[in-house]
Amino acid sequence: MSVADIDHSSLMSAPDIGGILSCMARWEPDAVGRLQQAALELYAEHGYEQTTVAEIAARAGLSERTYFRHFADKREVLFHGSEQLQAAIVAAVEAAPASDAPLDAIATGLRRIAPFFDERRAHSLRRHAIVRSSRELQERELMKRGAMVAAVTAALQRRGADPAVAALAAESGATVFHLAYERWVADPAGRSYAEHVAETVASLRALTVAPAAVG
Amino acid sequence: MSVADIDHSSLMSAPDIGGILSCMARWEPDAVGRLQQAALELYAEHGYEQTTVAEIAARAGLSERTYFRHFADKREVLFHGSEQLQAAIVAAVEAAPASDAPLDAIATGLRRIAPFFDERRAHSLRRHAIVRSSRELQERELMKRGAMVAAVTAALQRRGADPAVAALAAESGATVFHLAYERWVADPAGRSYAEHVAETVASLRALTVAPAAVG
Repeated sequence: MSVADIDHSSLMSAPDIGGILSCMARWEPDAVGRLQQAALELYAEHGYEQTTVAEIAARAGLSERTYFRHFADKREVLFHGSEQLQAAIVAAVEAAPASDAPLDAIATGLRRIAPFFDERRAHSLRRHAIVRSSRELQERELMKRGAMVAAVTAALQRRGADPAVAALAAESGATVFHLAYERWVADPAGRSYAEHVAETVASLRALTVAPAAVG
Repeated sequence: MSVADIDHSSLMSAPDIGGILSCMARWEPDAVGRLQQAALELYAEHGYEQTTVAEIAARAGLSERTYFRHFADKREVLFHGSEQLQAAIVAAVEAAPASDAPLDAIATGLRRIAPFFDERRAHSLRRHAIVRSSRELQERELMKRGAMVAAVTAALQRRGADPAVAALAAESGATVFHLAYERWVADPAGRSYAEHVAETVASLRALTVAPAAVG
């Protein structure tokens, strides 16, 4: 069975987060995996701007045509799995207890995807350094963030959240997602992404406590 | 005196927000203003993708060379004033009482820039619709947001905030900036941007209140 055979509609709607994550965590010994590995190596060796798709395909022992069958452009090879990551977060938000407030549902979702990062720490660190090096790649990452905010906003509304509250919670969730990731990347102790999510949510709560009246 | 004669270093450091805003609110009867007007008209009439810089310059009665003296590319004409807006927010954050918590300092800054939006409501609504129509323009807007987050993070650290707290507050401030703007654009009553900032900050505080223990 190929990736194309997967019924994505059922994948998206079912809260089978474990299944999604096990698909994601597995380093595919196929074209996609080889192209990702080649791109990471070449971007690190020569820089993102200086590398061509032809060079990536050649390093992977594949054709340019094969590259473009899997990735729309030179940037996308670094964002493989982002749809599944988004689907996993959305599934966890939908599966959270109805009594959970919006931000709690999102925090649960973010803790559930921790294995995606924790199991590929070396890969994530290399990828992170490359994305930071290029304005084009940062733009693409921000667009992925926007897509995730929209998907989580919709999921929260399906749980009955007011649209304005859903949007604010999803944006705040994206902030937690992003800053917890930055902390996780920089953590010399290598603690789990889930711990950084919990700490970042706690910091957000502390930050927004209504100020005491000042005399 | 031309714009080039302004000493930007003193502009940035002095908390003269009123002065910055009065410069921004004035619709310049010069090349920049004519190019902005022409771009807004053409993007609305024919779409952003279909419009060329040559057409914008011609509509404004100016040369392409003049366009590129003021704007680096086809997108930037829609982002004129973003540096000054950022400088005004940073100045207000720096000028906020030392007793203000980071998020309060940012909320003060955002309320202070309200005239920039309120005095150009029709312009802002047209511009907003055009930015929403193009992925390229959304990418540029997200990069501007990133620059503002970095500048506000630095300003909060100069006030003595812990780096991690400063980053989280600045990201949350960007969320408030963005969602208050969305609410302001959509508000049929046309209330001030400052009111939408205050409401969005209140919603954020409500959202992040620690959940009650559930039995």
